[in-house]
Amino acid sequence: MEAIGAQRILMPSMVHSSLLQKSGRWTQYARELFRLKDRNDEDYCLAPTHEEVVTGIVKHNTVSKKQLPLFLYQISNKFRDEIRHKKGLLRAKEFIMKDLYTFDLDELSAQSTYENVCESYSRIFKRLKLNFKKVKATTGLIGGKVSHEFHLLSNVGEDTLMICESCGYGCNEDIEVEMKLKLCPYCNNQLVSQKAIEVGHSFLLGTKYTEPFELSIDNKYLEMGCFGLGVSRILAAAVEVLSTENQMRFPLLIAPYKVSIITPKKGSNEEKNNITQFGEDLASHLSDNMFYDDVIIDDRSHLTIGRRMNDNKLWGIPYIVVVGKKALNETPKVEMISAYNNESFEMTQSEIIDYFNRVRNLNEVNE
Amino acid sequence: MEAIGAQRILMPSMVHSSLLQKSGRWTQYARELFRLKDRNDEDYCLAPTHEEVVTGIVKHNTVSKKQLPLFLYQISNKFRDEIRHKKGLLRAKEFIMKDLYTFDLDELSAQSTYENVCESYSRIFKRLKLNFKKVKATTGLIGGKVSHEFHLLSNVGEDTLMICESCGYGCNEDIEVEMKLKLCPYCNNQLVSQKAIEVGHSFLLGTKYTEPFELSIDNKYLEMGCFGLGVSRILAAAVEVLSTENQMRFPLLIAPYKVSIITPKKGSNEEKNNITQFGEDLASHLSDNMFYDDVIIDDRSHLTIGRRMNDNKLWGIPYIVVVGKKALNETPKVEMISAYNNESFEMTQSEIIDYFNRVRNLNEVNE
Repeated sequence: MEAIGAQRILMPSMVHSSLLQKSGRWTQYARELFRLKDRNDEDYCLAPTHEEVVTGIVKHNTVSKKQLPLFLYQISNKFRDEIRHKKGLLRAKEFIMKDLYTFDLDELSAQSTYENVCESYSRIFKRLKLNFKKVKATTGLIGGKVSHEFHLLSNVGEDTLMICESCGYGCNEDIEVEMKLKLCPYCNNQLVSQKAIEVGHSFLLGTKYTEPFELSIDNKYLEMGCFGLGVSRILAAAVEVLSTENQMRFPLLIAPYKVSIITPKKGSNEEKNNITQFGEDLASHLSDNMFYDDVIIDDRSHLTIGRRMNDNKLWGIPYIVVVGKKALNETPKVEMISAYNNESFEMTQSEIIDYFNRVRNLNEVNE
Repeated sequence: MEAIGAQRILMPSMVHSSLLQKSGRWTQYARELFRLKDRNDEDYCLAPTHEEVVTGIVKHNTVSKKQLPLFLYQISNKFRDEIRHKKGLLRAKEFIMKDLYTFDLDELSAQSTYENVCESYSRIFKRLKLNFKKVKATTGLIGGKVSHEFHLLSNVGEDTLMICESCGYGCNEDIEVEMKLKLCPYCNNQLVSQKAIEVGHSFLLGTKYTEPFELSIDNKYLEMGCFGLGVSRILAAAVEVLSTENQMRFPLLIAPYKVSIITPKKGSNEEKNNITQFGEDLASHLSDNMFYDDVIIDDRSHLTIGRRMNDNKLWGIPYIVVVGKKALNETPKVEMISAYNNESFEMTQSEIIDYFNRVRNLNEVNE
């Protein structure tokens, strides 16, 4: 986000009713909005999104033309009293969202900002190596003129997309109905329906919020954009689309642990010959030089290697290193299993370090 | 926190009433607890602290002896419907807390864990270079057997401490009243009262929460500790105790920006000779190699250097670099002002880089 000039802020979760009354959303929201009162009987809600708050902040701080386009983002909890909230992190009453708000001087620059940010969101999904789809969508209670959703295709998804397999055009079903689309508007091919999980949503808001807050420069209301990424939902959706029955898989960048090192079974020859230490040294090296805290040692040595390997696969460890018999060789070797393709290699310590250096460099490239 | 073996988790802000009913706090809390309902008329509160939630999680996941002591922490929003909530971040209805919960097998190990964590909290304040005081305190609604508070001494504080200037003993006024202390219990000296701001609080909880949640191993309830640091309050309190009338000061480690570079005034000789570029190159170097995103360029070149210097001091920039006349020298020099002691130095580019390397190393040392 900093790469596109965005500044990180943090807005409150508990928002005074007067802010949403200004935009009209205090009454427009039906039961989805969590409302509560403080000890002085003042009305608050738990913010489902932050358009009013951020507009109020920018208004309060007085921006100059030179500061535009202004990009403000946060990563914080959002609250929505969902009717269906059954699928764990996919749809929860409380969830983590990264939301970015932009302010521009006129429609043209707002449009270019909008495309710029959408492009950076696409890059995020590419870095996560997720097969995503950006589609046209309706604007709903957030409002505005133009809106796009980011989706991961999956049968557990609650949304239905209409996709043109020829040119790649896609829209949410709602749009298809609204616009009476039968065929792809670009190449006239049949649209194919696919179930999908929404993981991001962007809106070109126009002046919907800047007008009621009187946020203007040279008597022109600023043009806003807003862009949400469902952080906790991306985690759950990615696991949903990447995993198999026997193996949980996270995108490497967000896997809670990157490497697990399985040490020898208690009472084995390997254990007696002290190669457990070899595993611990490797763990320290990977932890200190490459993966920070994301390396664990599975030292439940009362369990077999096979049982621990299965557990590690179920936990979603991308790289499992087994310190076994060949660690006793003159040049010790370990077995390295990459969970992404279930490949297994025998590697020396220096080979394994080279391998992880390559993995890490590949993943740090800004695509 | 990872250095003492703690694992980071994230618990919900919205907590179902059934959890607090188990511990009895649903009724014990008076008006400080924010309560709300969902669309099915179920009762929730906004967590003021997370003892019940974390105990429920540990109970649900079944820990083994080998996993103890277990340290779980989070950094998240807490909510309390405070009567007085006037002093900005010092006392807000919503605030950021780092809370750590520990689980031990018996009282003795819980006591050693307690001291261990208190020690690590002291190290945090030392790294922030804050003059803090750890004192005995009462346990209040959180409960437990032993409790200590961490304070910054300041006249704007709402707490009063009783401090022995001879041996360093200190306690909160409440304890003094409760224990009818007149003199220091260790060296019999007169206790001196001082106003202070509470920035952390630790509790040796005993089995207050593990009993109602039936969290036990070998028929013994686990012994808990809990440890809170008021993250947003530390920020405000540190500014309070470090600043002067003309200068805001943050601890270097948490200053939002570390370095500001003031470029030449529009129309000046310096600007005409293109030394603005020199300032921008220096900013890039410091940003890329030392301070990540924490370097800003104050390019409001329509304002005088003096005016911008004052602004930078009011914003709390620890290091202000002025690119002025001497940047035109054969070996260009800039002026570097350290806000912590208002010293000013003339430095070449390589001297300034050496200087910041030293500053950074000093601050990264784990004291």
